[in-house]
Amino acid sequence: MLSIGIDIGGTKILGAIVDDNGMVLTEKRISSPAKDPDQMLKAVVELIQVLFASADSEVASVGVAAAGFIDANQSTVLYSPNLSWRNEPLRERLEESIQRSVVIENDANAAGWAEYRFGAGKGSKDMVMLTLGTGVGGAIISDGAIRRGGFGIAGELGHIRVVRGGKQCGCGRKGCVEQYASGTALLEAARVLSASGDSAGNFLSDLKKDLNALTGEHVRQALAAKDPGALSLLREVGTFLGEAMGSITAALDPQVYVIGGGLSEAGELLLEPIRESFLRELPAQGFRPVAKILAASFSNQAGVIGAADLARESLR
Amino acid sequence: MLSIGIDIGGTKILGAIVDDNGMVLTEKRISSPAKDPDQMLKAVVELIQVLFASADSEVASVGVAAAGFIDANQSTVLYSPNLSWRNEPLRERLEESIQRSVVIENDANAAGWAEYRFGAGKGSKDMVMLTLGTGVGGAIISDGAIRRGGFGIAGELGHIRVVRGGKQCGCGRKGCVEQYASGTALLEAARVLSASGDSAGNFLSDLKKDLNALTGEHVRQALAAKDPGALSLLREVGTFLGEAMGSITAALDPQVYVIGGGLSEAGELLLEPIRESFLRELPAQGFRPVAKILAASFSNQAGVIGAADLARESLR
Repeated sequence: MLSIGIDIGGTKILGAIVDDNGMVLTEKRISSPAKDPDQMLKAVVELIQVLFASADSEVASVGVAAAGFIDANQSTVLYSPNLSWRNEPLRERLEESIQRSVVIENDANAAGWAEYRFGAGKGSKDMVMLTLGTGVGGAIISDGAIRRGGFGIAGELGHIRVVRGGKQCGCGRKGCVEQYASGTALLEAARVLSASGDSAGNFLSDLKKDLNALTGEHVRQALAAKDPGALSLLREVGTFLGEAMGSITAALDPQVYVIGGGLSEAGELLLEPIRESFLRELPAQGFRPVAKILAASFSNQAGVIGAADLARESLR
Repeated sequence: MLSIGIDIGGTKILGAIVDDNGMVLTEKRISSPAKDPDQMLKAVVELIQVLFASADSEVASVGVAAAGFIDANQSTVLYSPNLSWRNEPLRERLEESIQRSVVIENDANAAGWAEYRFGAGKGSKDMVMLTLGTGVGGAIISDGAIRRGGFGIAGELGHIRVVRGGKQCGCGRKGCVEQYASGTALLEAARVLSASGDSAGNFLSDLKKDLNALTGEHVRQALAAKDPGALSLLREVGTFLGEAMGSITAALDPQVYVIGGGLSEAGELLLEPIRESFLRELPAQGFRPVAKILAASFSNQAGVIGAADLARESLR
């Protein structure tokens, strides 16, 4: 049975028709009117209608993934840092507009669910996903279900502290792992390194010393060229992640960690330092099995695949 | 229906007959032959048989709580720091001896379950318990069930890190919250404070400067007498706990924290600094509900009450 998945981000909205094996059959992408809550809703409704119209067979369910805090009833977007929704009753408003039942899920949870059902976490029952992008997102699958917490806001693993009195985080805390292991953090560290002149040079090759012009793409190129400075920054990201994962394992003891998001495209260059750090940080090492640490199977489509599958499951 | 609960510790074994409201009807305590695995098993079997014999009506189930890692099948004690069991097939051996089905649970999980079902956490669906004793134990109740993780070892919340590069922990990591917020940590801090001469004096009143003779009882007396040094140490314990709970809330978002174990007998003297620290450490404060922080309802009996109830539930 087909299901529609929508993934609402700060710059784009991705919509897809997904089959029950997690395969994306049709995909549509539109830009996100993130600043205007009503325009945003209108854009999402139109995207869903276009997808309905384009489907070859019946579409039974619609799942929507959104960056932000979703309430415990999975109805309302309480707060979203990058969208302008505040206490937005998204499910109700969408259901009114499209006359079908809708499931709302946090985007990191939806991505985690896609990996658990069809990707790197398939076959496990306890999985943790870390999504390394602008921030560090998280999803907790425990005993085969997403754990959303008492108020709907669990899995915000980017806000686990790694440095007491460390860097100020947007969440109000200091020293959150997101400040050390997100794409943003890596880019910031690359700028600092370039400014110091200690990098092997690739960072600055075409920038004419304009550090603000240094982008993720330059960092990617430097990593591809095995720039020692860039590699050492990525190693540091992996070290901090492994430390956070030591604490996550103390609490949740997952069988599998799935590492996704833009930074995970570095593959083994990132996974190897994560694994090394995690092994050092495993509580009671030697007396317990060691969780696997795997790269995510899906990249940009994880959110729509997960949201579509959660919507399908909700009909059962 | 009656159920037997057994709580195996390093110094004593507590056994009880518990009714289905969590009320302890009969209680027996024996010393724990912790050094000898076979003697330990024998002692537990005998205690269960004495309890069976003393019951007024039918006892349908037996639950055993033990300090240590229990495997994912809840059958084998993988490792226990204070008992001599290593890969002990405890369930099988007990079931052979007493000819009834037995449930094995980690002691902190059993205590957490007691609080969730009958105590401070009653009525919640997502609860976290922290047990402040020799170490810091933890239990995670999520969506109404104990979460044991992929390998059975979840909820070891004492090994969440609060200080990077901090005090060496027995688990192999550095800076675990257990090193800053357990009874042992408080006693150690009290010794350091006494040695420094900065305490208001109660610590040393009857010790003749023999710091090794300083015990938890002295610390309790100093707290009862409002010794400023002792109060400030307890405040520090609360601060570290609140910091760890900030990270736990990022991950698990519980509705209720239940604080148990010997240190929790300090009551509001401890809970108040925990609450203050937790509020400072709450990610995205102002955009989310705030979890309650409550003292545990049961003290030494939590393990037997929880183990007995888990055994009863397993029959359903």
